[in-house]
Amino acid sequence: MKFKADRATLLKALAHVQSVVEKRNTIPILANVMITVRDGKLTLTATDMEIAVVEDVAASTTRNGACTAPAATLYEIVRKLPEGAEVELDHPGGDAQLALRSGRYATSLVALPTEDFPSMTAGTLPNRFALPAQALRGLIDRTRFAISTEETRYYLNGIYLHAADSDGVRVLRAVATDGHRLARVEEPLPEGAGSMPGVIVPRKTVNELRKLLDEVTGDVDIALSDTRIQFKVGTITLTSKLIDGTFPEYERVIPRDNDKVLRVGKKDFSDAVARVAAISSERSRPVKLSLARDLLVLSAASAEQGSATEELDADRVKYDSSPLEIGFQARYLNDITDQIAEQVEFRFADGAAPTVVQDAADSSALYVLMPMRV
Amino acid sequence: MKFKADRATLLKALAHVQSVVEKRNTIPILANVMITVRDGKLTLTATDMEIAVVEDVAASTTRNGACTAPAATLYEIVRKLPEGAEVELDHPGGDAQLALRSGRYATSLVALPTEDFPSMTAGTLPNRFALPAQALRGLIDRTRFAISTEETRYYLNGIYLHAADSDGVRVLRAVATDGHRLARVEEPLPEGAGSMPGVIVPRKTVNELRKLLDEVTGDVDIALSDTRIQFKVGTITLTSKLIDGTFPEYERVIPRDNDKVLRVGKKDFSDAVARVAAISSERSRPVKLSLARDLLVLSAASAEQGSATEELDADRVKYDSSPLEIGFQARYLNDITDQIAEQVEFRFADGAAPTVVQDAADSSALYVLMPMRV
Repeated sequence: MKFKADRATLLKALAHVQSVVEKRNTIPILANVMITVRDGKLTLTATDMEIAVVEDVAASTTRNGACTAPAATLYEIVRKLPEGAEVELDHPGGDAQLALRSGRYATSLVALPTEDFPSMTAGTLPNRFALPAQALRGLIDRTRFAISTEETRYYLNGIYLHAADSDGVRVLRAVATDGHRLARVEEPLPEGAGSMPGVIVPRKTVNELRKLLDEVTGDVDIALSDTRIQFKVGTITLTSKLIDGTFPEYERVIPRDNDKVLRVGKKDFSDAVARVAAISSERSRPVKLSLARDLLVLSAASAEQGSATEELDADRVKYDSSPLEIGFQARYLNDITDQIAEQVEFRFADGAAPTVVQDAADSSALYVLMPMRV
Repeated sequence: MKFKADRATLLKALAHVQSVVEKRNTIPILANVMITVRDGKLTLTATDMEIAVVEDVAASTTRNGACTAPAATLYEIVRKLPEGAEVELDHPGGDAQLALRSGRYATSLVALPTEDFPSMTAGTLPNRFALPAQALRGLIDRTRFAISTEETRYYLNGIYLHAADSDGVRVLRAVATDGHRLARVEEPLPEGAGSMPGVIVPRKTVNELRKLLDEVTGDVDIALSDTRIQFKVGTITLTSKLIDGTFPEYERVIPRDNDKVLRVGKKDFSDAVARVAAISSERSRPVKLSLARDLLVLSAASAEQGSATEELDADRVKYDSSPLEIGFQARYLNDITDQIAEQVEFRFADGAAPTVVQDAADSSALYVLMPMRV
């Protein structure tokens, strides 16, 4: 295997693949990237046995072949080469080391046999559809904060992606929940997704995919079966196992009849939450919302440090139901308002019941938040 | 105590004082800042019992008095207030809480009694001199990386500041060493510093002082005794205990007769060091320098990962002594070259002896580096 490539091109591809590689792992070859030149085409592959990323890279190739080399080291080396440099990689085959040359710089990297590099087969992926990168970013950004990190509830450790019926309209839905809050986001159902099974996409896959989406416009091709999902983002193919579990019947926990409606500016609200929550350094500090006609008082207290309050009045708040007191974790409130553009709409039942939160101008995302005792 | 101040003014002063406060400590009042209004003048004080920072702050005061309140919380709250806000602080005295008001936001902070707040007396400080802030920054930046972090060698845990004789010229010297490298930086001796005792300024004091120096031009007034040092930086007074120990006779370890001279561009050299060192992820990875006439070959190797070399030739390197091989820790090399502007001058004796490094255009700083076996 032998090729020359631009430093910038190679660096970008190595950044993608080394991100998937687990920094600490007991199987040495999993720290490696597989570099393949076949029919004059350069491909980089990395896997952690759950996710595989395969990227086609523009290069001037002179010999077919393949080897594997330490992904993080190769990335660090290429990163430190001067801008505009040309890099030559040369592996004569067999047990030889991989030679990298650029100007007067040269390395020999220990290469492990490609036969030992685990291949992740996708199998047959009968469900295929395309989604604009922008829409996929929206599904991820507005749900992933709610993914559970409790390993025992493994079926909540991802985003539940499925076709659904939303007031008579067919949609593609992404749902995540950790039992304290739930996020449900919808996009118009893409052609070909109607018969897809509901699948749970693991958190790491979601995060790796999201990084790749930063750089693209246009459509992402998605293909899936019961056990695998594959995303084609430009010249990159990300294939992932799915979580083998049953996502809970989330619709049951979304209240339908909450009729006490609060509207408040997103920035006014989130800044005030941050200020009153600053009284306590506990991560799970509760903030109390006390509502009266067109008046919202936020408050928090800490036994050691004292208390804080902030009033938002009729200039900033619309509320015309009966008075109400309810408490939430400050961080949970801000995770949701971070996804909202201008006006936040809360729909309460009472001080102990799940509350619905939405962007007042966009019904495609819906959040449910459990109150905490204050 | 009662006053109003601009958010920006108060925030800046709180940033200074809360930086000194130890985040984790067993004595609750040490987490507090003391807020004093006396003769209509507002002062903030913080201490960790080793360092005390006292800052005068512009404010519109309406009642004298004093209280102490949690420094980090107060800082977080003021930071989260809107830009341009006016902040009122009000403590009626006794056991009352400290009230902070800004617009429709209000907090009550638990205040601990000022009587319990430790005061750090400076005692008599007979030695007084002034040093331009710029010069003090230079003394610190070019020495602090070499301060030892080994607690058992407590007398190396700071910068040794003293008056000295440098080839017949009287200078103020800052020296730091951890046994592997040594940094010695000189400034012309300021008036009044000639009779000062040699003192060891602790690392935390150095770092806190350095933060304050970012914002100032003009002179810093320095006063010291055998046991205390005080810096006046603008409206801030930083007083610190000194390390009670004897700094080693460092002049003995500075080689005088190293006659093999290498000159190399700082950027060429440090980039090449970073690239060859990238082959290994060990923190203490050695880099080998192999010298021949006008040729420097840098190399590094790792049993697991492979090897790397880079050549710098006559275009970039001047060397006309006999061939030499010598190894250094990559990080130690870069700590030194980070302080050098353009050309680095190395003076070697042989492959096993301490090496002298200087900025070829500036003899005020001198570094000594111990080789390691490669």
